[in-house]
Amino acid sequence: MNSIKNDLLLRTLRKEKTERIPVWFMRQAGRYLPDYIKLREKYSFFERVRNPQLAAEITVMPVKQVGVDAAILFSDILVVAQALGVDVEILEGKGPILKNPIRTKEQIDKLNPQHTEEILHYALPTTRAVKDALSNEVPLIGFCGSPWTLLCYMVEGNGSKDFAKAKQFCYQHPELAATLLEKITQSSIRYLNMQLAAGVDTVQIFDSWGGLLSPSDYRKFSLPYLNEIVKAIQPKVPVILFAKGAWFALPELQKTGASALGLDWNIEPSVGRKMAGNAVVQGNLDPITLLGPQKNVEMETIAMLKNFGTGNYIANLGHGVLPQTPLENAKLFVDTVKNFKH
Amino acid sequence: MNSIKNDLLLRTLRKEKTERIPVWFMRQAGRYLPDYIKLREKYSFFERVRNPQLAAEITVMPVKQVGVDAAILFSDILVVAQALGVDVEILEGKGPILKNPIRTKEQIDKLNPQHTEEILHYALPTTRAVKDALSNEVPLIGFCGSPWTLLCYMVEGNGSKDFAKAKQFCYQHPELAATLLEKITQSSIRYLNMQLAAGVDTVQIFDSWGGLLSPSDYRKFSLPYLNEIVKAIQPKVPVILFAKGAWFALPELQKTGASALGLDWNIEPSVGRKMAGNAVVQGNLDPITLLGPQKNVEMETIAMLKNFGTGNYIANLGHGVLPQTPLENAKLFVDTVKNFKH
Repeated sequence: MNSIKNDLLLRTLRKEKTERIPVWFMRQAGRYLPDYIKLREKYSFFERVRNPQLAAEITVMPVKQVGVDAAILFSDILVVAQALGVDVEILEGKGPILKNPIRTKEQIDKLNPQHTEEILHYALPTTRAVKDALSNEVPLIGFCGSPWTLLCYMVEGNGSKDFAKAKQFCYQHPELAATLLEKITQSSIRYLNMQLAAGVDTVQIFDSWGGLLSPSDYRKFSLPYLNEIVKAIQPKVPVILFAKGAWFALPELQKTGASALGLDWNIEPSVGRKMAGNAVVQGNLDPITLLGPQKNVEMETIAMLKNFGTGNYIANLGHGVLPQTPLENAKLFVDTVKNFKH
Repeated sequence: MNSIKNDLLLRTLRKEKTERIPVWFMRQAGRYLPDYIKLREKYSFFERVRNPQLAAEITVMPVKQVGVDAAILFSDILVVAQALGVDVEILEGKGPILKNPIRTKEQIDKLNPQHTEEILHYALPTTRAVKDALSNEVPLIGFCGSPWTLLCYMVEGNGSKDFAKAKQFCYQHPELAATLLEKITQSSIRYLNMQLAAGVDTVQIFDSWGGLLSPSDYRKFSLPYLNEIVKAIQPKVPVILFAKGAWFALPELQKTGASALGLDWNIEPSVGRKMAGNAVVQGNLDPITLLGPQKNVEMETIAMLKNFGTGNYIANLGHGVLPQTPLENAKLFVDTVKNFKH
C-alpha cells in the first residue's frame, strides 16, 4: 500500500532500521522561503491555506528547494478555532488576532465541534492536491495544535509572552476550561481524521505553549486532551507529539502511546532520549543556529547527531525555522544530516 | 555582628533549622504596589533608583505592606550596562531600550569595568539608606543580572522573545562574546562589592534569559561567568542563583558553590531538590496563580510547601510578581507560608 519512494521518516516512526537519519523542519513551508514570500504578497494567509493549488505549491516547496525527507501540510493550528466558530485573523508578522476572545460559559456553550467538517471543508481537496503534487516522493505530515495551546489563543485573543489571561481563566474556571478543552479536542480529532482521509501519512501535534504550565497544571490542562487525540489517531497513523518547554512531561507524553516525541534545544539529547523512554525522538537544534555562521551550523548539527546516536531518531530543529533564516543554511543543515556517517 | 531581628532567610541560607519557612517575592519592590505606582507618576525609573530616600522607601514597602521576610534593593539589572558606559533607558511598561546596541569589537574595547564605582556611585548611599530604613527588621538582598542576561540586552538593544540578534552575535563571534561577558562579569563583581560594603546581607544573581540557551551553549556563555561571580562573592555573603528556564544546568549551578538555587514553576519541587544537590532551593509558584482566585492561591501555595518539604527551602514565586497582581493575593501567599505547619 505504501509506495512512497523516500519513506525514511515512516520507517523511523515504525522503529525500523534505516540507512540514514530522516530530516525535516518545523515551519518548513513558509516565511523563510523567497518563493513563499512572493505568494504572500498576492494572497492573504487564509487564501493560501484554503486554495488547494496554492497550499500544494507551498507544501512542496521545501521538499524541492531544501531537500527535506517529508512535507508538512501548509496550514495553521488556529483553523481548529475557526472550526469551532471563532473568528480568527492572521496578520502578517503580527500573529493571530481573535476579535471575540472566549471568556464566558455562554460563548463556550455555542462552540460546536460538529461543524468541523463543514467549516474546514477545504482540508480534503487541499490535502489531496498536496498528495498529488508530492507524487509519492516523500511522506506528508498532517498536524494540529494541542487543545491547551488552542485554548491559550482562544481565551487570550492574541499571542502573548505569558498568556496570563488564558491561564487566569483556567485557574478561575477550571470546569469551563475543561469543557472548552474537550470541545477543542473533539474538533481536532475530526480535523485530523479529515487529513487522514485525504492521505496524510503521519501527524504531529504542536503543544507550543505547554511549557507555560507547571507539571501539575500540565496534567490538568494539557496531557488528558493530548492523550485523547493520540488514542484516536495513533491506531491509524503514527503520531508525533511536540510540547515546547514541557520537558518535565516527557515520560507522561510517552505513556500516551505516541510514536515519537519532539524535543526543544533546552534538553541534552541523551537526557531527552532517557525521558522519552521507548518513543522515537525528534529535534532539537536551536533554530537561531541556522542564522549562521555556516561553520557553526555544520559543527552544531554534527554534535547534535552524535549526541542523539543511531536509530529511532528524526533530525529537526527544536522549534520552528525562523523567518530570517538564509535558505542556504537550511540546506546546509539538511545536507549535513544526509551526509552524516556514524 | 548579625543583629537582624527576623533572620529566617539568612539562617536558611546557612542551612540551619528554622521555626518556619522564609518567604519573599522576586520583583516585590515595585509595579504591583499602589504606593509605588504613585511614586512612578512623579519620578522617572532611574530617578527612583538613584535617589537614596526614594529607593529606600520603595525597598521597604513590601516588608511593611506584604510582610515578606526580606527586602531586595530597588534597582535594575541594567545598571551594570550603564556602569560599562552603555546608554540605557527604561520606558514604563515597554522595558529597556539601548540606543547603541553592542555589535563590534570597537564598541566592546571601549567598555571599561573600572568606571563601575564612579558611575554607580549612588549605590553606596542608596544601599545605606535602605539599611537604615529597614532598622534591622529583616535582611537586605542585593542583586545583579547574570553576564549572559546582560549581554542579551546589550547586544539585542531591547527586550525580545528570543534574543535572536544577541544569540547570533555569540555564534558568529564567540571570542568577542567572551570578552564582553568577561567585562560584564568584572563590572558585576565590582557592583556587588559596593552593595556588600554598604551592608547587603545576601545577593541574588538573576539569569533571566539562561533558558534561551542549549545546555552546551549555557556552559559556554553563561555558567563560567556565574562561576566567577560566585567565587568572588560567596566567601563574603551567601549567593542565590536564579536561572529562569535553565533547569538542565541545576547540577552545574550547584557546583559553583552558591548557597541557594532558584527554581521556576516548570519543575516538580522534588525534581528540583534532587537536581540542586545540597544547595538550598527557592521558588517556585507560577506568578499567574497570584492573579486569583484566592482559594486557588491558598491551595497551590500549600501544595508547593508540602512538595518542597521541611528545611533548606525559601518560599518564593517561580519568577517576578506580575504588575496586575492584587495586593491582597500577594499577602495571602505570604500569610499562607507563615501559617503553614508541616
